[in-house]
Amino acid sequence: MIVVMGPQHTPADRAAVVREIEVAGLRVHISEGVERTVIGVVGDSHTKELLHESLEAMPGVERVVRILQPYKLVNREFHAGQDSTVRVRDVAIGGGRVVVIAGPCSVESPQQVASTARAVQAAGARLLRGGAFKPRTSPYSFQGLEEWGLQILAEAREDTGLPVVAEAMDARQLELVVKYADMVQIGARNMQNYTLLRDAGRAGHPVLLKRGPSATIEELLLAAEYIMSEGNPNVVLCERGIRTFEPSTRFTLDLAAVPVLKGLSHLPVVVDPCHSSGKWKLVAPMARAAVAAGADGLLVEVHPEPDQALSDGPQQLTPQHFTALMAEVSAVALAIGRRV
Amino acid sequence: MIVVMGPQHTPADRAAVVREIEVAGLRVHISEGVERTVIGVVGDSHTKELLHESLEAMPGVERVVRILQPYKLVNREFHAGQDSTVRVRDVAIGGGRVVVIAGPCSVESPQQVASTARAVQAAGARLLRGGAFKPRTSPYSFQGLEEWGLQILAEAREDTGLPVVAEAMDARQLELVVKYADMVQIGARNMQNYTLLRDAGRAGHPVLLKRGPSATIEELLLAAEYIMSEGNPNVVLCERGIRTFEPSTRFTLDLAAVPVLKGLSHLPVVVDPCHSSGKWKLVAPMARAAVAAGADGLLVEVHPEPDQALSDGPQQLTPQHFTALMAEVSAVALAIGRRV
Amino acid sequence: MIVVMGPQHTPADRAAVVREIEVAGLRVHISEGVERTVIGVVGDSHTKELLHESLEAMPGVERVVRILQPYKLVNREFHAGQDSTVRVRDVAIGGGRVVVIAGPCSVESPQQVASTARAVQAAGARLLRGGAFKPRTSPYSFQGLEEWGLQILAEAREDTGLPVVAEAMDARQLELVVKYADMVQIGARNMQNYTLLRDAGRAGHPVLLKRGPSATIEELLLAAEYIMSEGNPNVVLCERGIRTFEPSTRFTLDLAAVPVLKGLSHLPVVVDPCHSSGKWKLVAPMARAAVAAGADGLLVEVHPEPDQALSDGPQQLTPQHFTALMAEVSAVALAIGRRV
Amino acid sequence: MIVVMGPQHTPADRAAVVREIEVAGLRVHISEGVERTVIGVVGDSHTKELLHESLEAMPGVERVVRILQPYKLVNREFHAGQDSTVRVRDVAIGGGRVVVIAGPCSVESPQQVASTARAVQAAGARLLRGGAFKPRTSPYSFQGLEEWGLQILAEAREDTGLPVVAEAMDARQLELVVKYADMVQIGARNMQNYTLLRDAGRAGHPVLLKRGPSATIEELLLAAEYIMSEGNPNVVLCERGIRTFEPSTRFTLDLAAVPVLKGLSHLPVVVDPCHSSGKWKLVAPMARAAVAAGADGLLVEVHPEPDQALSDGPQQLTPQHFTALMAEVSAVALAIGRRV
Repeated sequence: MIVVMGPQHTPADRAAVVREIEVAGLRVHISEGVERTVIGVVGDSHTKELLHESLEAMPGVERVVRILQPYKLVNREFHAGQDSTVRVRDVAIGGGRVVVIAGPCSVESPQQVASTARAVQAAGARLLRGGAFKPRTSPYSFQGLEEWGLQILAEAREDTGLPVVAEAMDARQLELVVKYADMVQIGARNMQNYTLLRDAGRAGHPVLLKRGPSATIEELLLAAEYIMSEGNPNVVLCERGIRTFEPSTRFTLDLAAVPVLKGLSHLPVVVDPCHSSGKWKLVAPMARAAVAAGADGLLVEVHPEPDQALSDGPQQLTPQHFTALMAEVSAVALAIGRRV
Repeated sequence: MIVVMGPQHTPADRAAVVREIEVAGLRVHISEGVERTVIGVVGDSHTKELLHESLEAMPGVERVVRILQPYKLVNREFHAGQDSTVRVRDVAIGGGRVVVIAGPCSVESPQQVASTARAVQAAGARLLRGGAFKPRTSPYSFQGLEEWGLQILAEAREDTGLPVVAEAMDARQLELVVKYADMVQIGARNMQNYTLLRDAGRAGHPVLLKRGPSATIEELLLAAEYIMSEGNPNVVLCERGIRTFEPSTRFTLDLAAVPVLKGLSHLPVVVDPCHSSGKWKLVAPMARAAVAAGADGLLVEVHPEPDQALSDGPQQLTPQHFTALMAEVSAVALAIGRRV
Repeated sequence: MIVVMGPQHTPADRAAVVREIEVAGLRVHISEGVERTVIGVVGDSHTKELLHESLEAMPGVERVVRILQPYKLVNREFHAGQDSTVRVRDVAIGGGRVVVIAGPCSVESPQQVASTARAVQAAGARLLRGGAFKPRTSPYSFQGLEEWGLQILAEAREDTGLPVVAEAMDARQLELVVKYADMVQIGARNMQNYTLLRDAGRAGHPVLLKRGPSATIEELLLAAEYIMSEGNPNVVLCERGIRTFEPSTRFTLDLAAVPVLKGLSHLPVVVDPCHSSGKWKLVAPMARAAVAAGADGLLVEVHPEPDQALSDGPQQLTPQHFTALMAEVSAVALAIGRRV
Repeated sequence: MIVVMGPQHTPADRAAVVREIEVAGLRVHISEGVERTVIGVVGDSHTKELLHESLEAMPGVERVVRILQPYKLVNREFHAGQDSTVRVRDVAIGGGRVVVIAGPCSVESPQQVASTARAVQAAGARLLRGGAFKPRTSPYSFQGLEEWGLQILAEAREDTGLPVVAEAMDARQLELVVKYADMVQIGARNMQNYTLLRDAGRAGHPVLLKRGPSATIEELLLAAEYIMSEGNPNVVLCERGIRTFEPSTRFTLDLAAVPVLKGLSHLPVVVDPCHSSGKWKLVAPMARAAVAAGADGLLVEVHPEPDQALSDGPQQLTPQHFTALMAEVSAVALAIGRRV
């Protein structure tokens, strides 16, 4: 950490900054430049992090520059520069293969889930997703079948053997999802719901953590750090689009996040090409692009009759379209030396 | 609602759209233009909203355009075009006066809160704020004194008579905040935490709802609609900055949101000039600007010794700076025919 | 076009709107809904576009909704739904093959350009790019070799046969670029420099038009319309990243723009994966992703010694890295049925 | 400037970085931390700036952190921390008074300009603005009366004595604007048109420089540096809204830019509350807010009949509304110790 003193700082300002640093058990390293004095802070990174805001509020300080990343457990450096793998039952995410997670946006009926599950399995999906609790922008939209929805998903697992991923939005829902499903999804709107992150960390279940629409990559990694700091290392990161000024898609899929995340962290990274697109025709090109960029998996919404869906119809694929997408995605994976 | 049919749609596509609309009990009104056919949907707005996504997913449909706002109870039209007022004990927010809510970012000790409360009251603040549960980007930052923090705030209310505002991030915290405080704050990161919104709606306590950093004005109003749809009309909206590309401030304070929100909704609108700034020197100019733009109140962070604060030191004002800010803000309020 | 009348509009307001439309030679089609009256405007789309702002400013009008796109010549519909092809000497962009345009950010010397040109040609690039006039954020940065730079590029074309692309920022530069190069680049910062767009339209030379960092897809298409409306159909669109809040890359590459642009327009679309990344390690994954998303070409910066480059060193590839990138990109192209 | 070496850098990497710095005539100051080595670069700031990108491209370097701002002449530090004043004929901008610049978006006829000029003068405006060359998103929109428009503005100056501000978009227009008008406006879309910035610097006329919709505050200051580096110190900065995801206004007015700019630079700062709003009803609240935030002036569009305007009708005020706005703005200015 480096403290840049402003051009008008006094010797007393500087002495106070040095004292604050030394009282915390850290050492200083002062460098007098032509136009600025810079105070380097040397010592334990955790202690430095705690001191950051106090130093920034002190008289004479122009700004405080971090040298190290503010996260630890998710940091690639703390995992010897190696990728980690997250197992969901018998499926490994992050182990070289591209894992496709597919299923309907909302669970609507046993028939809908059963037919979708079989179709996506036949096309090569390795996990089944489905929403039993739905975060909806409007209170008047369909909110999900709740526990019954989870039971329907668990039955589909019985039928197909596909492990199940489902979203939880609070502690009570988390308990139910842990009971019925194999992986819990923390949605984009809850990425900084710290209570839920801690609860998911304590639950120990594999977590699929979606990036918030206005979250930086650093904030996504800090959200994962919340989960890992409770002792749960089974976190998969998911890029699903960020909010920008461009209105032709609902969100802008930030595919550069894939190589950036894999450079900073050891955790697996998957991509959801549906929510950002808002239109099913854009899903296949963005799914291909995500795999080409190095994603460890995809999250795709599939519905037997999208125009009858109770949520997000325009962005869901039919089973036929999904089968075609899987063929395209497999070819791209092979081209970069991986397979689906 | 209007359905625009694409240039290559077939008569069968159009018939299917008309059928879908009529089955829902709505009427159609077809307009053939030179290059597009437009199908107007006439009838109950709630039913139309439910049909929106299905229509958008149908073959031949280019897009669906909403004519009405998707919210009802928060809509200015449903309140006869009048402003509503929210009472927190004996203080009315929205009733013409500019209400200032002040206090420390985090509750740290009884002494800190007591001295801050007296200072802000002397300077003209009408409510006391303080954080007992802190949402922090890093799991290693100070997380708040929890229930003890709420007790400290309640003691300060005993002492000064100032009603108390405190944030809750989940159902358990909400119960405690309702027990000790007079108004519950739902923070920016929880603006789309629908479980919490519903719980706050049911609790009935006045709610201070902060805009999420990537939330549109429409999404903020829909979040308020969640609370109101549970029977709680006591919602105050708070603009606190949105996420943009500009790095010199933490968030970009969107002051146009004040007149826009007041044009669309009857709810009171306050502004937090601290979190967007990130630096205390920017707080006073932005507080003056917020009042000049028509805000019904301000939310200001004050700390006796900002450089010793356990959170957000750089953006908190000293009591002296706060007193100066109140003088400036009062003069601006008078200039536009209001008073603090 | 549709005019939505506000809830408090008067009969006189409505009559004035109808008169304004009819005076312009258009017809109205009025639809009375339960809560709003909507006036459809039927007739020539060009006339409607001109009326848009006047109607929006009239008393009683809530908003005006466009039904058709505001551009014509670049519209896919006006080209019978077919892709167009732009020829630069003997190279066709948009004709099924993926065309790679490569070369140094800035032209620095004859040796640098000659060695780069031969290296990129050997690796499969089909056009040579190089900057002779450099748009630099700071007036103190290197601004380019100007005419001498263009001569160096022309010599490299003599040597290799590769057609040359170079940027022009004003009328005088445009004349020189047309004299020496085969395709003129209009940079992101000049995407809405309308004088330059018209001049490039009149010059008739093929144009590589880069999307501005805050330009919507619609605005990019309108900029291309400026060029085409002067009689020059040879426009290639280039996605190069938009400005967002994410600081880990310089810009966020919006790859969904590729299928969106190809759906709206007939023009070829290429991607520049360098400027958004800011770091050469991100270039290869984003280049692969661009091709997988359906781009008709790539624009890649290559420098024999990036750490000695006079501009943008961190994002330029060495010839060795470029050769590896070409192999990866070729494999991805084959996987989706195209070739480089 | 500080060079952070990555965790895996070699002694050879470090030696190369040190050599690069020393060859440029600068000195190094090495600080070995627990987890990173940091190399401070000491010496002339201009030389450091030129070295920035080369260092960032060198092997072993994690990142390069700037300590000083990259601009000089516009920097407040280089003006002894004092505000500068820009004179346009007999009107001083930046000297304590709030200067209002008003007039129509486009010059349409002598009558329109004459009546607007007299009306805005009567209401207290000190400069007249009007567009003779209009940057329009669509090539089919009205593009301005060109030289005749400038003559009309010059006649209105004869009539009222108000100095005239007009926009130029290229070198030829600049010559005409310098001939007829008293201050040249460089519009938001041309903020990084470096040819135009240099030409405006050489012309020596006072310049009103608008912030680009995706330009950071630092980039705005660097654009002003381009003008000043050609010997023209008469630059007024203008905040006019940045591009964000919020659709209810055309741009988001970043009023915090006012105090931020005044803290970093000595140049006067004015605000255009019209272009961001897109709706005249939002102009008055945002104008009041801008003055309350400390703006040195306002730029307001006024038209005798906005619904007949050839451009931007919805955001232009009638003379009556402008007179009311001036009264409100004057009261706010007085409240903060200034006057209009």
